Amino acid sequence: MVDTVGIVGLGLIGGSLARRLTERGVRVIAWNHHSHPYAQAEADGIFCKSTLSELMDAEPDVVVLCNPLKAMPSILAALAPLMGDHPNTTLTDVGSVKGMVRDQVKAAALGKCYVGAHPMAGNELSGWQAADPHLYDGALWAITVDESTDYRRFLDVAAMITKDVGNRVIVVDDETHDKAAAMISHMPHVVATALVNELVADPERDIATALAAGSWRDMTRVALTDPDRTRAMVEEDDANVSRLLRDVSSRLLAVADALDGEGRDAALTRFFAEGDPFRTFKTAQADIHTHAPERIVELPGHGWQTALTDLARHGEHIVRFETSRTVVVRELSHIG
Amino acid sequence: MVDTVGIVGLGLIGGSLARRLTERGVRVIAWNHHSHPYAQAEADGIFCKSTLSELMDAEPDVVVLCNPLKAMPSILAALAPLMGDHPNTTLTDVGSVKGMVRDQVKAAALGKCYVGAHPMAGNELSGWQAADPHLYDGALWAITVDESTDYRRFLDVAAMITKDVGNRVIVVDDETHDKAAAMISHMPHVVATALVNELVADPERDIATALAAGSWRDMTRVALTDPDRTRAMVEEDDANVSRLLRDVSSRLLAVADALDGEGRDAALTRFFAEGDPFRTFKTAQADIHTHAPERIVELPGHGWQTALTDLARHGEHIVRFETSRTVVVRELSHIG
Repeated sequence: MVDTVGIVGLGLIGGSLARRLTERGVRVIAWNHHSHPYAQAEADGIFCKSTLSELMDAEPDVVVLCNPLKAMPSILAALAPLMGDHPNTTLTDVGSVKGMVRDQVKAAALGKCYVGAHPMAGNELSGWQAADPHLYDGALWAITVDESTDYRRFLDVAAMITKDVGNRVIVVDDETHDKAAAMISHMPHVVATALVNELVADPERDIATALAAGSWRDMTRVALTDPDRTRAMVEEDDANVSRLLRDVSSRLLAVADALDGEGRDAALTRFFAEGDPFRTFKTAQADIHTHAPERIVELPGHGWQTALTDLARHGEHIVRFETSRTVVVRELSHIG
Repeated sequence: MVDTVGIVGLGLIGGSLARRLTERGVRVIAWNHHSHPYAQAEADGIFCKSTLSELMDAEPDVVVLCNPLKAMPSILAALAPLMGDHPNTTLTDVGSVKGMVRDQVKAAALGKCYVGAHPMAGNELSGWQAADPHLYDGALWAITVDESTDYRRFLDVAAMITKDVGNRVIVVDDETHDKAAAMISHMPHVVATALVNELVADPERDIATALAAGSWRDMTRVALTDPDRTRAMVEEDDANVSRLLRDVSSRLLAVADALDGEGRDAALTRFFAEGDPFRTFKTAQADIHTHAPERIVELPGHGWQTALTDLARHGEHIVRFETSRTVVVRELSHIG
């Protein structure tokens, strides 16, 4: 269904996606805010353009916005008049927050052709130099939709991800996505940063650093990424991150109170047991990925958004489309 | 200086140590609370004994207590009368808290022959089956001393670690050790557990789990270890862990307040910059390990404890003894 993909922004995420799609036989047209990566990208088979207008003239089926979120309003403003001349092109993006991007897309009057997306792939590097098609190996993407999303456009993006990138998909609404991303990424980045700050403030930090081994290394790895990038991610999802930080803060205080006071035994027993469902899930996970059976689900013409979101709520991931109205799913993230 | 080492407890830490010392030519005598590992241990060249009395009869220069901390009082009670018959044997241990162990050692009237130790090595496994001499590759040990520690006994333990195990050493007092261990291990284990608990309490946990990638995996890995072991570690260092949890809790609340309110920009700028000295150190660390020069330090006869602790405070690690009064150090954990 997808023949040509336009990639806006050849950084770590966009560059890796462009290389992966090219490797897998898709025609990729790219634009970047500077042309430094162009020579290498062209050598990899990516068609680089000097303007967004030239990118659109190549008639991409899907345009994937892989630019930094702070550049989104100006890119959308530049794209808006061009998209009018190419009404069949579907617009998507890879931003780590989805509600804000949809608002910006709608403000640019591009809501009709838009489907949100977020690949759960990345590392502490950045830029074209770090781009690697294997970044997407085994990855899952969230696709975000609302009641006005056009099914054909959803299908363009979902087919590109499942067939052309070779990844899994779950479908959620923007708000659910942004809450979940805050839970498993944005808030933990703040926690890792707070741990590093706590160490730096410790007068005995050189001794503590000497003793630091695997647990410290793993818990603070993400605090080593560019703090400006982390800050932007947190600010873009501020309400969800703030709420979760307050929750986690309370949980830590409750343990401190238990260690200092009465009712210690019961409180600690409860605290150390609460996460057991996740431990059980993780122990079984390797097995789940090997053995979870495939199931075919037919989507309704009306209310397909809710049907797909319900699958996500049960930890069922879309692995491919059987027909344009039937998805093949596997239950891979159901904690129970 | 060390010819024979006695190992009490052949679990992950003790079993790995026994195997490593044996491989490196040291005679190792071992006792375990049950004899299940004995056949394999004997095949590895470890001499296994059915009683602590038989272990002491082999005249070990150093006995290393590698039993769980909860068994410490009963093991010390059993050892006390035997140690009286072997006044030259030095007693040490590998416990993850040091103040409590010293108190227990003193209560058993074994303070005179004791030097504390804690190898910063381990993983999420346990038991003899997981024992592996490579567990100690590149590891650092904390040795803990107080004003009454005998220099000759300190030297026995330090020489065993640097020469026979082939590891680095820093020397600290018990209180400093226990605070530092709380900072880089015990408190972070609680934080990881709190993150897992927060996820399990999330009604959308199956969606969040689907989206979880590298940052979540790394930040919660230690929450997957046996929660009873984590709980024991935290309870044994309760005052330090509680204090740090309150600090981290405040740091998280401050970020939540900044995200929700006034003064956001300045507060977030400060928060994301505070950890920069640690980021700079980590970026340089590979280089430090390759290039930090060796320096020879002569220890005073009186006040050697303070001289060694001062080295640790400057991030200088002992890599070997040049003579019995001269140590070779490298500055490997100085954050600056």
